[in-house]
Amino acid sequence: MEITSENPAMEEMIRAPDGLYGVAVTDTRISKSSADGTLTYRGYPIGELFEKASFEECAFLILEGRLPSRAELGRFIEELHARAAVPEKVYDIVRSLPTDAHPMDVLRTAVSGLGASEMSLSPRDQQYSIIAKMPTLVANCYRLVRGMPAIEPDPGLDQASNLLYMLSGTRPGKFDSWAFERELILYLEHDLNASTFTVRVVASTLADIYASSTAGLAALKGPLHGGANEAAMQMLLEVGTAERAQKYVQDALSQGKKIMGFGHRVYKKVDPRSQLSKALLRRLLEEDGEGDDLYRLCEAVEAAMWEAKKIPTNLDFYAAPIFYTLSIPIPVFTPIFAASRIVGWAAHYNEQLARNKLFRPDSVYVGPKELAYVPIEKR
Amino acid sequence: MEITSENPAMEEMIRAPDGLYGVAVTDTRISKSSADGTLTYRGYPIGELFEKASFEECAFLILEGRLPSRAELGRFIEELHARAAVPEKVYDIVRSLPTDAHPMDVLRTAVSGLGASEMSLSPRDQQYSIIAKMPTLVANCYRLVRGMPAIEPDPGLDQASNLLYMLSGTRPGKFDSWAFERELILYLEHDLNASTFTVRVVASTLADIYASSTAGLAALKGPLHGGANEAAMQMLLEVGTAERAQKYVQDALSQGKKIMGFGHRVYKKVDPRSQLSKALLRRLLEEDGEGDDLYRLCEAVEAAMWEAKKIPTNLDFYAAPIFYTLSIPIPVFTPIFAASRIVGWAAHYNEQLARNKLFRPDSVYVGPKELAYVPIEKR
Repeated sequence: MEITSENPAMEEMIRAPDGLYGVAVTDTRISKSSADGTLTYRGYPIGELFEKASFEECAFLILEGRLPSRAELGRFIEELHARAAVPEKVYDIVRSLPTDAHPMDVLRTAVSGLGASEMSLSPRDQQYSIIAKMPTLVANCYRLVRGMPAIEPDPGLDQASNLLYMLSGTRPGKFDSWAFERELILYLEHDLNASTFTVRVVASTLADIYASSTAGLAALKGPLHGGANEAAMQMLLEVGTAERAQKYVQDALSQGKKIMGFGHRVYKKVDPRSQLSKALLRRLLEEDGEGDDLYRLCEAVEAAMWEAKKIPTNLDFYAAPIFYTLSIPIPVFTPIFAASRIVGWAAHYNEQLARNKLFRPDSVYVGPKELAYVPIEKR
Repeated sequence: MEITSENPAMEEMIRAPDGLYGVAVTDTRISKSSADGTLTYRGYPIGELFEKASFEECAFLILEGRLPSRAELGRFIEELHARAAVPEKVYDIVRSLPTDAHPMDVLRTAVSGLGASEMSLSPRDQQYSIIAKMPTLVANCYRLVRGMPAIEPDPGLDQASNLLYMLSGTRPGKFDSWAFERELILYLEHDLNASTFTVRVVASTLADIYASSTAGLAALKGPLHGGANEAAMQMLLEVGTAERAQKYVQDALSQGKKIMGFGHRVYKKVDPRSQLSKALLRRLLEEDGEGDDLYRLCEAVEAAMWEAKKIPTNLDFYAAPIFYTLSIPIPVFTPIFAASRIVGWAAHYNEQLARNKLFRPDSVYVGPKELAYVPIEKR
């Protein structure tokens, strides 16, 4: 427990809205999402980064607060490669888990176990290690649980290509890699979502990056936070064709079902990441010669939801069919979110520690008072 | 992501104090700590429970909101016993971890892995499972990492006795068990400390109790939250004798060192749990015929800190020498905290879900704005 002389008197206590909606709990210099449908990473508009930058460049930007020089980027990439291999002992942990274990349970346990093995590294090296290893873990947790052999990362590939390669065992084509990298860039960082907030709360106890990220992964398991891209894909498969979209949405809404991949705390009219992904899906289907059925299906569901509820798609809605088109197995969709978001978590971890105060909120006690203990024979 | 129509306009955004000090983030009916030095569990004063109740009775109270009848308590104890054994596969995970791993890393990884194996249980059974298994895990994580064989829980023993038994391999004496049980009661629950708050944030994503507790354990690793009882014991051993206390405290304070086991966010004059523990330490030393050196040492450090800084001891300060007198290895002190607090976490998990709203706070962006991307060759 922290020693402090501060203790706001009870009269001064603020009762925050549930979920801390509309309550700013910290200053940040990392990213900014606005209701007008804009998002910046360290001050750069997401659209520009999406078009022009590599995943590694954006990761450096988010971690260090500035775009890297060519030499810095080279060293950064080299360090990620040097640290990408996962110790065999961590794979032993994964092999101890049931074959039907939830992918997020597996990944969380592996990251937690990795932490137990790397306490002798400096905090800085720990961060680079976990960022470098996360794609390897995502791919090989999926493989090992299913009895497939692990695939070592290929030092000749960038982060996005490597993740696709380790998942499938085949080196991806250039456009596929590029498209996947775009999605990873969009998942890198997004302000104080539930997992990033969890990371900051745990960081505030001065726990290490593995503990904090394990907690972030725990939050990402929750269907209200992670999991939406998987659920969106399942729904798209269920709808099947563009022609069935309107009826499906109407039926679902009238039955009070949640439609996944729609709505966002911040973006009420448009999620810029969704728009970028939508255009990317169209290009990807063209490049891969897949026809536009999937695109038309997505668009029809989007239109039906807008018509019915005026709720726009979020990132997960168009990321899902992109992952699907890239032949990524659906159970890996949320782990992929984590493979990218680990960078944002690390940046928030560092920002929290730079000016730390232990998170220790209050609550309003509304239960019974002044009860007297009654011996068990008199109850 | 949650679909919601709420979006407080930016003008209405509240900037909360760092660490959410003085900000009530929820209503609660579980426990209440007050600046005047009182603590109640579900409305019952901690002093009465400490004196009269068993650990299992208090755990039932915290979980269910009322004291159990004799039949209910019997069923509760039976269920804990029936679920106390840990699957061998989870022990395999623990055996994969390095022998010098941090005890909280080991426990966190084991709980995370347990979760991966128990997804087919109902949420209610999952809670009883994790509560029943936590003492077993705490003891056997300690043992297995050191190459000692696991010890199965003895169904003839209560939770407190079982934990002491599994740690040492010897069934404890009656008074030792009773004293240890008193401390477990004090650690059961304490409002929105950092780990419990973490549990609620993760629960709000609708993640399961294992994910939420894994995150709680992650927070408890941080030296500003858990770990204080271990640090307090290390300090007491370093001071050595009552006669050296005043000089030690003065030197430490003048060197800006943190003195562990003192101060609390809520209790500014007295922590009721510390007072109860202090009296218990005295009795325990007497019963065990250990002399009063340790007690005098603690009292001298307490007096020196009060004189110098007017900061009272907290629970950890007197719990530490009690655990030490009970021959509990110091690295298990924080895991023991978790073995008890899991009950409070489960109660908060349930309370969160009963009226859930995803935690999604805001932040104030204070970084650079409107930067334009510069190609790498021009940086």
